[in-house]
Amino acid sequence: MLKDYRYDGSRKFEISKVSTDETSLESDRKKAEVKMAENAVKIEELQEKLYADKKEGLILVFQAMDAAGKDGTIAAVLTCLNPHGVSETAFKSPSSVEQSHDFLWRIEQHTPSKGEIAIFNRSHYEEVLVQRVKKMWKTQAYADRIDRDEILENRYEDIRNYEKYLYHNSIRVVKLFLNVSKKEQARRFLSRIEEPEKNWKFSASDFEERQYWDEYQKAFEAAINKTATKESPWYVVPADHKWYMRYVVSEIILHTLKKMDPKYPEVTKERLEQFAEYKEQLEKELGK
Amino acid sequence: MLKDYRYDGSRKFEISKVSTDETSLESDRKKAEVKMAENAVKIEELQEKLYADKKEGLILVFQAMDAAGKDGTIAAVLTCLNPHGVSETAFKSPSSVEQSHDFLWRIEQHTPSKGEIAIFNRSHYEEVLVQRVKKMWKTQAYADRIDRDEILENRYEDIRNYEKYLYHNSIRVVKLFLNVSKKEQARRFLSRIEEPEKNWKFSASDFEERQYWDEYQKAFEAAINKTATKESPWYVVPADHKWYMRYVVSEIILHTLKKMDPKYPEVTKERLEQFAEYKEQLEKELGK
Repeated sequence: MLKDYRYDGSRKFEISKVSTDETSLESDRKKAEVKMAENAVKIEELQEKLYADKKEGLILVFQAMDAAGKDGTIAAVLTCLNPHGVSETAFKSPSSVEQSHDFLWRIEQHTPSKGEIAIFNRSHYEEVLVQRVKKMWKTQAYADRIDRDEILENRYEDIRNYEKYLYHNSIRVVKLFLNVSKKEQARRFLSRIEEPEKNWKFSASDFEERQYWDEYQKAFEAAINKTATKESPWYVVPADHKWYMRYVVSEIILHTLKKMDPKYPEVTKERLEQFAEYKEQLEKELGK
Repeated sequence: MLKDYRYDGSRKFEISKVSTDETSLESDRKKAEVKMAENAVKIEELQEKLYADKKEGLILVFQAMDAAGKDGTIAAVLTCLNPHGVSETAFKSPSSVEQSHDFLWRIEQHTPSKGEIAIFNRSHYEEVLVQRVKKMWKTQAYADRIDRDEILENRYEDIRNYEKYLYHNSIRVVKLFLNVSKKEQARRFLSRIEEPEKNWKFSASDFEERQYWDEYQKAFEAAINKTATKESPWYVVPADHKWYMRYVVSEIILHTLKKMDPKYPEVTKERLEQFAEYKEQLEKELGK
């Protein structure tokens, strides 16, 4: 069931207890691909309604360890959405200008307008993932009054409040953690080294990050437990099989859009009467 | 005492009980002007340290009824600050693009970087002032799931959380309500009508807003009581005497900067040694 992947604050997420390679929703790859194509059609229909309705926006946050297949999955999602109402933003290491600001400054510039979908390739969660693992706030500039031991807890709180604020203001935030195993990551890194056309994807720094694997796992577990709410749930998606991960992601997006339940705006009686007039004029022009 | 004007959540603000024309800090206009000039020098010094230190930012929010003298006061503040580290943003009625976004979207674009001061001429508080008085959310686009009766309380909560977030992230928010009386507003409107060089300032809509005077008073009272905190206090400044209001505002800014206590960055022993080398080279070049 899709809800087995969902964390909304009502139960604890234990990263060591979830499988990264199970395929319980659909174990047949061919069937999963057919279902995904069917989902794509439904997603496109719902997105058109969302765009027409202009009442609610959606942020899809994607977070993952290196080589989990985040970029490819986002690309697959984007192909089934109308580019007109969708944006993707990749949040890399913050620039010096971004670092001189509050951490949501760069995020808030990319929130969707009502009717639109924003895809965040990494996000404000970097503040409690890489920043936690590397204890980056030790070297960052903060007001002297700030106790650095409180920064992490404050960030969890700030993120919770921020997503609640967005929810109050007609923007829904749904967060996806693409959960790959350390072994599968090793296999993918290896193929990046062995296959020339994948060489560009490999960097030594990715390899170095592997030594922090356990800390990253703890950081993901904590981030999810601290920020999963009914309004802004997390989904933990098994990522060892790319085809399965993509299919599950399509199920999550479809489920989310169905829950948002966008409708074409109602046409008033007045407008319908106007339509009749326009129709008459247009027909006259066309000599009908 | 300056703290008589400060509201930080520890006592209630009752708008009907505060005077708009008292001058308790300095009743002599000439003396107030001299003190203000002295404050300006101190403010400039502290701002330079703030700018050099680059650890904390400051937002000064100015809110007032029409003709309270907000623009003139902001202009007076700006003349004693180095324009390099200061910005002023006037938040007018939200544009259609701004309305299609969450309400902090346009605000967050103007938060200062660490070391800078942002002056907000009107602000996110418009959401609980004019929007409350005119019940604007009745006609705005919201997701169907949102109960419009909860919007106002949610906004107070969102604003509180937002300012707390900024405080966590090295930005202090200090809010000033320039409190003018209805009678004094009438006098100032009259002079805008009678004096040709002031005519451009007068608009019929300002006059129409007067009929909502009591509702605005209630909205200010509620906004201040709901959002005054130790970290982000409100100051209610008597505004019937412009010279006094400006002097008090200079006291508030000076007090705030003193509390922030910026310092020039410490120079390391290493840097001092480098300085000696540079000095030698420069002196050689100058033939000393």
